[in-house]
Amino acid sequence: SVNPDLGSERQTASFSVERLTALLDGGAEQTRIRRAVVEAIESDPVFSRENQYFQTQNERYEAAVRKAVHLQKKMHEMGWTENGPEYKYIYRALSGDVAFLLHHVFMRSISVLGSDKQIAKWIPLATQHKLIGSYAQTELGHGTYLQGLETTAVFDTATQEFILNTPKISAMKWWPGDMGRSATHTVVFAQLYIHEKCYGIHPFIVQIRSLQDHSLCPGITAGDIGPKMNFEHIDNGYLLLKNVRVPRENMLSKFCEVRPDGTYVRQGSQKINYFTMTTVRISLISDEVLTPLMKACTIAIRYSVVRRQSKLKPGEQEAKILDYQTQQEKLLPQLAAAYAFYFTNDYLQELFNRGYREIQRKNFDMLPELHALSSGFKAVITQHCTAGVEICLRACGGHGYSLLSGLPSLYTKILASCIYEGENTILLLQTARFLIKCFMAASAGQPVPPSVTYLAAVKHGKCPAKNKLDFLSPDIYIEAYQHVAVRLTSNTAAKLQDLIQSGVKKHDAWNQCTVQLVQAAKAHCHYIAVKNFAETVEKLETKAGIQKIMKHLCDLFALHGIFSNTGAFLHDGYTSAAQMDMVTASYLDLLAVIRKDAVPLVDAFDFTDKSLNSALGSYDGHVYQRLYEWAQRSPTNQMSPAYERYLKPLLHNTLSKL
Amino acid sequence: SVNPDLGSERQTASFSVERLTALLDGGAEQTRIRRAVVEAIESDPVFSRENQYFQTQNERYEAAVRKAVHLQKKMHEMGWTENGPEYKYIYRALSGDVAFLLHHVFMRSISVLGSDKQIAKWIPLATQHKLIGSYAQTELGHGTYLQGLETTAVFDTATQEFILNTPKISAMKWWPGDMGRSATHTVVFAQLYIHEKCYGIHPFIVQIRSLQDHSLCPGITAGDIGPKMNFEHIDNGYLLLKNVRVPRENMLSKFCEVRPDGTYVRQGSQKINYFTMTTVRISLISDEVLTPLMKACTIAIRYSVVRRQSKLKPGEQEAKILDYQTQQEKLLPQLAAAYAFYFTNDYLQELFNRGYREIQRKNFDMLPELHALSSGFKAVITQHCTAGVEICLRACGGHGYSLLSGLPSLYTKILASCIYEGENTILLLQTARFLIKCFMAASAGQPVPPSVTYLAAVKHGKCPAKNKLDFLSPDIYIEAYQHVAVRLTSNTAAKLQDLIQSGVKKHDAWNQCTVQLVQAAKAHCHYIAVKNFAETVEKLETKAGIQKIMKHLCDLFALHGIFSNTGAFLHDGYTSAAQMDMVTASYLDLLAVIRKDAVPLVDAFDFTDKSLNSALGSYDGHVYQRLYEWAQRSPTNQMSPAYERYLKPLLHNTLSKL
Repeated sequence: SVNPDLGSERQTASFSVERLTALLDGGAEQTRIRRAVVEAIESDPVFSRENQYFQTQNERYEAAVRKAVHLQKKMHEMGWTENGPEYKYIYRALSGDVAFLLHHVFMRSISVLGSDKQIAKWIPLATQHKLIGSYAQTELGHGTYLQGLETTAVFDTATQEFILNTPKISAMKWWPGDMGRSATHTVVFAQLYIHEKCYGIHPFIVQIRSLQDHSLCPGITAGDIGPKMNFEHIDNGYLLLKNVRVPRENMLSKFCEVRPDGTYVRQGSQKINYFTMTTVRISLISDEVLTPLMKACTIAIRYSVVRRQSKLKPGEQEAKILDYQTQQEKLLPQLAAAYAFYFTNDYLQELFNRGYREIQRKNFDMLPELHALSSGFKAVITQHCTAGVEICLRACGGHGYSLLSGLPSLYTKILASCIYEGENTILLLQTARFLIKCFMAASAGQPVPPSVTYLAAVKHGKCPAKNKLDFLSPDIYIEAYQHVAVRLTSNTAAKLQDLIQSGVKKHDAWNQCTVQLVQAAKAHCHYIAVKNFAETVEKLETKAGIQKIMKHLCDLFALHGIFSNTGAFLHDGYTSAAQMDMVTASYLDLLAVIRKDAVPLVDAFDFTDKSLNSALGSYDGHVYQRLYEWAQRSPTNQMSPAYERYLKPLLHNTLSKL
Repeated sequence: SVNPDLGSERQTASFSVERLTALLDGGAEQTRIRRAVVEAIESDPVFSRENQYFQTQNERYEAAVRKAVHLQKKMHEMGWTENGPEYKYIYRALSGDVAFLLHHVFMRSISVLGSDKQIAKWIPLATQHKLIGSYAQTELGHGTYLQGLETTAVFDTATQEFILNTPKISAMKWWPGDMGRSATHTVVFAQLYIHEKCYGIHPFIVQIRSLQDHSLCPGITAGDIGPKMNFEHIDNGYLLLKNVRVPRENMLSKFCEVRPDGTYVRQGSQKINYFTMTTVRISLISDEVLTPLMKACTIAIRYSVVRRQSKLKPGEQEAKILDYQTQQEKLLPQLAAAYAFYFTNDYLQELFNRGYREIQRKNFDMLPELHALSSGFKAVITQHCTAGVEICLRACGGHGYSLLSGLPSLYTKILASCIYEGENTILLLQTARFLIKCFMAASAGQPVPPSVTYLAAVKHGKCPAKNKLDFLSPDIYIEAYQHVAVRLTSNTAAKLQDLIQSGVKKHDAWNQCTVQLVQAAKAHCHYIAVKNFAETVEKLETKAGIQKIMKHLCDLFALHGIFSNTGAFLHDGYTSAAQMDMVTASYLDLLAVIRKDAVPLVDAFDFTDKSLNSALGSYDGHVYQRLYEWAQRSPTNQMSPAYERYLKPLLHNTLSKL
């Protein structure tokens, strides 16, 4: 039985939920495959996450290892393979709650950076799980800035070995997943020294634990880095190397090789490797960033039509909290953003597939643009979605704060995406560097990549909107976004030049512009996201109400961005105050329109109750029962020694005898 | 030994850190008392928080109970009393990590709401800990909207008892602290029924657990609500009442009494009670909101001068990350906000003390203003400080994400302050209601309370600033803030009137304005905070560099607010685009100025290493050593059964036989 307050929301859907789900999946057949995977995983008790919120870090780790091992068996049973159509749905179905993710990174780094001989030796061992791999790049003292890594690998011609060392505490490897307790091998990134000359960072395969009894190998100190905000299931580790010797063959040598006599040889182009690193930033968006926001929206919106609080009209029943404008203003822009970035992700995937084909034809022209887009969007989407999940959590009041709502863990996990795979501010500055370069080139009449050609077309017009309905025209708001992106880029470029011309050194000038450069990079990405959403809507089928509701969401995404950042649009008078009032009016109108379809719009994400793992977000909406039943099973409802030890003596008045 | 990268920051302080500490404490004597309390608490191993990040929820609860019991002993030993000068420092010294906080709320509610006879009976029992009290207001289905509470208390004239019931699941008491496992008694808020007529919400003292063996009393179902984002040390509980009978004398009856025949009698004025509820919102600001932000700033800023990453100038050493403009832009506005709201809190405390004196003289005139200010500032300060702590966390990259940094727990705890003691959006709307009312009154020439007289003086001028230095003049920016607050209030009042005049019903019109009403309320509070900061600086001693550095922080707080919200200032042309560029320039200049004193400014908060409980924020700045040493003690570095159970069979290749 469905809570009638939730059920009624579904009866008035303006579109076909099933059609929208299929659209998101990329076709009804994909939906079918995805659901089959979800069904197989969720019906298997080994993969249950039901007790997750009650478990300690140790219990979470053990469960994740158990699941990883069981998954191998499951895949075998089900006939799923790494190249099959089911594969990409497995991780989502597990909600990422599984160990050995770094084992895949270990394998990929060997495939990409290793010679054919190295691939032939290590990949079969890894595939058969005769070892467990990890990937040791980040150190205590260095993350995003790879050149600063301090681990050393000195080539010893006498023994034909590399000697690896952690010369100081800041050089300790720190954070690598699966390394704290599980891994037997890892790829260590270290500064290569030959005859006392440094050749920079190179990757080395190092065994860290015995394959017999799992004890640490000689010279290795390793362990778990302890509690984190989330990722309790992963044994992020530390690693300290003391004169650890590995044979010459263990340096991954597709691009550089050390000959027996110590000669250092570069070979081939490293650009494809550079491309691989870029794609990682894109590949995490779907599972690690969009899915959490979509789940948070589902939970918060379903809860907001079941929760009734206070009276909107005197004498009536208490109102559903989603009927309050302030609640709509919290949640519906997050819903619109989830859809917007879902389509951005499609756009990026397509662009990267194209880039990959070009690169295989030895055409590297697209690389700078791909790097700028992947950096900028990684930062913008992780930031936006993290903020969105937090808003959803807070919009559920006290119950959102309970782990049983599912929202705290979504938040504490997505937050990490702002940090890993490149710190967001640094990534935005890389995008900005590309923008400034392209702006200069465009100003000088030189050709620039497609995503930035608009920088050349600086217009000094005004926004032509005459009434609030004009702001529901994509042409109007896309141009406004474009104008802002151009203005911020060109103004910052001008400031940079002025500073340099006034005698400030280049690097100082750059630093003095970074706050504004970050703004420019964000504006660029925001513009592309809005434009892409509008173009996507344009191409949608008009049947079953899909295009209409997507158009509303696109408008909301665009107008919310203007409403939340009015200064950028008002600054040079491109948009007038009167027009900004129109934006506000249209924006607030849209909230009321989309509110009607809010539940169907989250239903279309098609999360099962098990995947949400939330007392607030279940499909049937029986929030209070679920909270109560679940809380009763909490370990905090077991007998506590605190009574006998402390409360009893207190109540029986030991204290008064003090 | 202090890390030289941190030590050098202290040598160039432009002001006396000790003088500033004394200023914050309210005098050197207060500093002395505070330090003595901190010393006594921190030197006592029972109060240690060293293992906190490793403990389960059950362990945290037990430790908090142990500490609460030990605290009684400690106070006795030290000669501290609840009325002594030391008392207010105890909670901060414990970092709030202690049980039985609701016991005090239980006592206060009896003192405020109980008759003299009730006070005489219950307060001594509570003081001597012959019972443990809690406070059961919030239910599964209702929080801030108290009228909606569903628990019932029916008067039975035959037995002279109230019969308490939980008529449906949403009526279950949910969240009360100390109730899940510890409390023996609680004050239950329930709808009072006499002869089938409802008299609204009233408080009843109910015993829930046996004083002999702590078993639940007949008719009582109670337990712990399970895991939360933080507050693991508190046993937030649930309570279900089934025909629980309490004697007529257990209804707290200072303001209303039920006579034996069932006659309901109101007596005295409830306004003082209303005032008490208002003061709670103010009282939490210092310990629960400002302290976490001040700690987060201390941790993040100290870390940012020890962490070196990437090169600012080619060929030089890697730069301290605080030397990057983007890092300054993240952290220094949070530091300025911490000081700003510290002084706002002083202002509110003073205002409330004055209000209390007036009320004791039966003058209730200040109540609406006090209610509006406490609601608005509770929302604005909790929101701002929560966002600030999150920024500090993210500004520390991966290490900020480790629990050992201390930042995750500061964040997950402060976040709750946005939810408890009144949901922020609802509070802001209460402030807005007051603003609209006062604006209408002022427009009609009627007198209004002091904090809103400015609403009467609507000016249509322009900002007179001519260059970027003008924006370092408080008169200039205070007036800009005032202008925005007036504009947002008057525009929203006009929209509200227009809607009503066009036939929209009053409550619908209100709902359609709420997004903008929230903006107006925030602008009002922001204006008062800026004005108060500037006035505080004006009155400071000019010696020892204190006034100068505080003036810089005040400017930064004001300009950061404008820079982050340019649209509000640009909207009607009060500030021009050229002036906004001056604001930006001045703002960015200030970052570089305050950066020089950043470490001394957090040193002045005078947190000990134990109170920070952070591997990143220690006074000596040996970040990496501390992380490593601490991580080694994590329970995740104990032997795990996962190896024998899962990893060994996997590595020894059971899988290949599948």
